Amino acid sequence: MAGTDRTRANASVAGAGGPVIVLVRPQLSENVGMVARAMMNCGLGELRLVAPREDHLSGKGPAATSGAHVILENATVHDTTAEAIADLNRVFATTARRRDMVKIVQTPRRAAGTLRELVSRGERVGILFGPERAGLDNDDVALADCLIEAPLNPAFSSLNLAQAVLLVGYEWFQAESDAPPEQVIVNGTRPAEKHELLNFFGHLERELDACGFLRNTDKRPGMVRNLRNIFERAGLTEQELRTLHGVVKELRHGRRDPAWSEHVREQTPTPD
Amino acid sequence: MAGTDRTRANASVAGAGGPVIVLVRPQLSENVGMVARAMMNCGLGELRLVAPREDHLSGKGPAATSGAHVILENATVHDTTAEAIADLNRVFATTARRRDMVKIVQTPRRAAGTLRELVSRGERVGILFGPERAGLDNDDVALADCLIEAPLNPAFSSLNLAQAVLLVGYEWFQAESDAPPEQVIVNGTRPAEKHELLNFFGHLERELDACGFLRNTDKRPGMVRNLRNIFERAGLTEQELRTLHGVVKELRHGRRDPAWSEHVREQTPTPD
Repeated sequence: MAGTDRTRANASVAGAGGPVIVLVRPQLSENVGMVARAMMNCGLGELRLVAPREDHLSGKGPAATSGAHVILENATVHDTTAEAIADLNRVFATTARRRDMVKIVQTPRRAAGTLRELVSRGERVGILFGPERAGLDNDDVALADCLIEAPLNPAFSSLNLAQAVLLVGYEWFQAESDAPPEQVIVNGTRPAEKHELLNFFGHLERELDACGFLRNTDKRPGMVRNLRNIFERAGLTEQELRTLHGVVKELRHGRRDPAWSEHVREQTPTPD
Repeated sequence: MAGTDRTRANASVAGAGGPVIVLVRPQLSENVGMVARAMMNCGLGELRLVAPREDHLSGKGPAATSGAHVILENATVHDTTAEAIADLNRVFATTARRRDMVKIVQTPRRAAGTLRELVSRGERVGILFGPERAGLDNDDVALADCLIEAPLNPAFSSLNLAQAVLLVGYEWFQAESDAPPEQVIVNGTRPAEKHELLNFFGHLERELDACGFLRNTDKRPGMVRNLRNIFERAGLTEQELRTLHGVVKELRHGRRDPAWSEHVREQTPTPD
């Protein structure tokens, strides 16, 4: 899914009010950089690091942001998880392992809705992500109001750090997205109107009568319906109909090489 | 989200009937390995590569699978996209850039539902992903029945290859997941019954009366209600109630160091 339009508004990226992403003891600066990229994809702006093993502004970190370096540069570093979340009202913790604790667990989708609600009431929220290998330890989990657990292959649910951030951020973004689930790109033209489609059917069927394709009068009605169904299903635009008119016209009346015509006649199975 | 339970059933990972993931001209074997990991996370098993720049079984590819190497080993390599999709019935293509084409575009969520429907009818489906930098070219896109476009920050929508695969695979998995959106881990115990909670309130309030905390009779009813609301909101388990009984009992009747008691009295603001 390459492609970023840097001329488009980047308003949501300020991340004002959105969840703060808190990485607890991340190991590799490259992973922190990839987290910054995933955050920018999802319109999240505020990153906090608890006791990172590597300097996030060195090594492979900045390159891994793929352009989201502003998030890395503005990231703050903290000694403890408690310090990193001190100013927040609610904290969620991501985990793939069940803990020996009594906790509410939400899917990323439900958690996204909960977080949107909390933010709309003016609460400051954050999400904890553990180190790459082991995940959050139980003392960090105990600081959270709620756990987030993604339903994934139970036999292989361990996600890369940036991918865990992406899933949670993706659901955060979807929870407010007004993108229609399905649309048709019509690319400067417009969907055909039925009279235009019927006009094309008329043209096609006249030429098919003229060239003999529909000569079997018993089968003609069924063949016509089958052809019409093909083009009905295609959801054609006005521009495409004009192209198809041209295709039919040129196939029927365009230049012919007599030898090639003979060859095609031999190779093509006759209809039915 | 670390944590994978390798003893749990891995049935869905065979990926039988699930979408085939087709990577068109991937550049780095490390990215192909990360795609295999994301596929395994989402219960997808079949990977095809069109003209990869690097050998996917060399370099950083196998290590990047983090244990999903079986998907890499079973991946097939093809010269052209047309060859890679030849046996499929429907093909979706992921893209972040709008193309000069008339195409249906679905969100990953809607596409997951569509793909599940097609698979349930016995169709073989596949999803195309383009090279890391440029995405799919227009000739590859034209081979697809439908496009998938993830609603993300429009000013920064370019996803890492494995992350694009993860989002689509995640939605594929969610479309059949029966995970409850919210649950409470009760960890071997059970939610408390109301008579147990009321019994605890009785214990707490008796001791607070005895120690003088509730001595202001005008304010007593409101203070009691406030305290009860705190513990009502907590959604306590039977085990936690037993712990709280112990806390109250020990606070009230446990061992005391006279000097420490004096110090606490000086430091603690009196109620109200």
